[in-house]
Amino acid sequence: MIDTVTICSGGLDSSTLLYLLREEGRQQVVVTFDYGQRHRREIDCARYHAWSLGLPHRVVDLRPTFSHMVSSLLSGSQQEVPTIEDVLGDPQPTTYVPFRNQIFLSIACGIAESLGAQTVAYGAQRHDLYGYWDTTDEFIERFQSLIDLNRKTSLTLYAAFVGYSKEEIVREGLRLGVNFRHTWSCYRGGTRACGRCPTCSERLAAFSRVGVPDSLEYDVA
Amino acid sequence: MIDTVTICSGGLDSSTLLYLLREEGRQQVVVTFDYGQRHRREIDCARYHAWSLGLPHRVVDLRPTFSHMVSSLLSGSQQEVPTIEDVLGDPQPTTYVPFRNQIFLSIACGIAESLGAQTVAYGAQRHDLYGYWDTTDEFIERFQSLIDLNRKTSLTLYAAFVGYSKEEIVREGLRLGVNFRHTWSCYRGGTRACGRCPTCSERLAAFSRVGVPDSLEYDVA
Repeated sequence: MIDTVTICSGGLDSSTLLYLLREEGRQQVVVTFDYGQRHRREIDCARYHAWSLGLPHRVVDLRPTFSHMVSSLLSGSQQEVPTIEDVLGDPQPTTYVPFRNQIFLSIACGIAESLGAQTVAYGAQRHDLYGYWDTTDEFIERFQSLIDLNRKTSLTLYAAFVGYSKEEIVREGLRLGVNFRHTWSCYRGGTRACGRCPTCSERLAAFSRVGVPDSLEYDVA
Repeated sequence: MIDTVTICSGGLDSSTLLYLLREEGRQQVVVTFDYGQRHRREIDCARYHAWSLGLPHRVVDLRPTFSHMVSSLLSGSQQEVPTIEDVLGDPQPTTYVPFRNQIFLSIACGIAESLGAQTVAYGAQRHDLYGYWDTTDEFIERFQSLIDLNRKTSLTLYAAFVGYSKEEIVREGLRLGVNFRHTWSCYRGGTRACGRCPTCSERLAAFSRVGVPDSLEYDVA
């Protein structure tokens, strides 16, 4: 009996989340969104972890929807992906995808309700160097308050990592035996991680603080 | 310059909404969702009104997403569409589509943000004989409170008909010259409206109270 719908992008945070929830004894369905992101490689990473853990996996094709959105993160975009220096202190950088997280969570809630699951888990993580309104504590609280109105199905949003730094998630992943080589973070669509975009920078800094090498290959050391 | 993204299903309420917003002088983009509903005919009605009013129209294909949902309203469903007698007093009948309205509104907000519009309008209408949690005042208030967290874009949800009965919307549509023959309400996928499903019953009752005939053709009188 499925009790948890877990959104997994194939990135470091949400891949680690799958292993944490398995440890907690949850019965998961993994949901991944294909939304026309430049870094579609992450979808294969999500597939790898779902397969490794023997979990049912649903890849939802949202490309027709996100073709209407403007963001440097989308493969159809004319805008370049910024570097970490470009986005520091920016409350909403160009890598923000309009209402992406709210759309993902709403769909995951619909799938959870359809399956009779009680929990929607996602890997939101608070301590970003740059900011997104849709990964904050307050966003999660208000989203929960909205879905509490549902008359038939009581659903709980579970953002297990909302109080974690990226460094703490890396430590948690190492403890849980996550193969980080099969997690993709880079925002650019290359075959190797660029090492310079906002998410590569964060990831490399986190591994450096933990004091272990990142097993992913990078274009720049 | 577009200022309003209006969600139009092609039904009576949201079609009337387009004409009301035009009267208010808004610059609209019309957004219609193709989500695998049995009553796909409504999409052609939305096309008709967007075309009649000379408004840009985007039809967003959400069929891959809603293939994961369970509802008697979906064309892939094994469940039959209930009659009005089946659903009276039911707080969440089988015609409820899990998180549909929240998903639609979230996508419309993303499109509005991408276009630089300030308003998302939709035809939610309160006085249903049966109930959906995602058409209430409280739902709209909490949704608004959630999107108020957006750091860059201030968006207002505009549910112009939330205080209207169906009868009042029919009156408003007549005043605005809406061609009701090109609005589709029936939940069943037939070529003529069934006259017996919950939404047909509501519609016929509203026209009867107003004292004008409904120009749509029905299977039963």
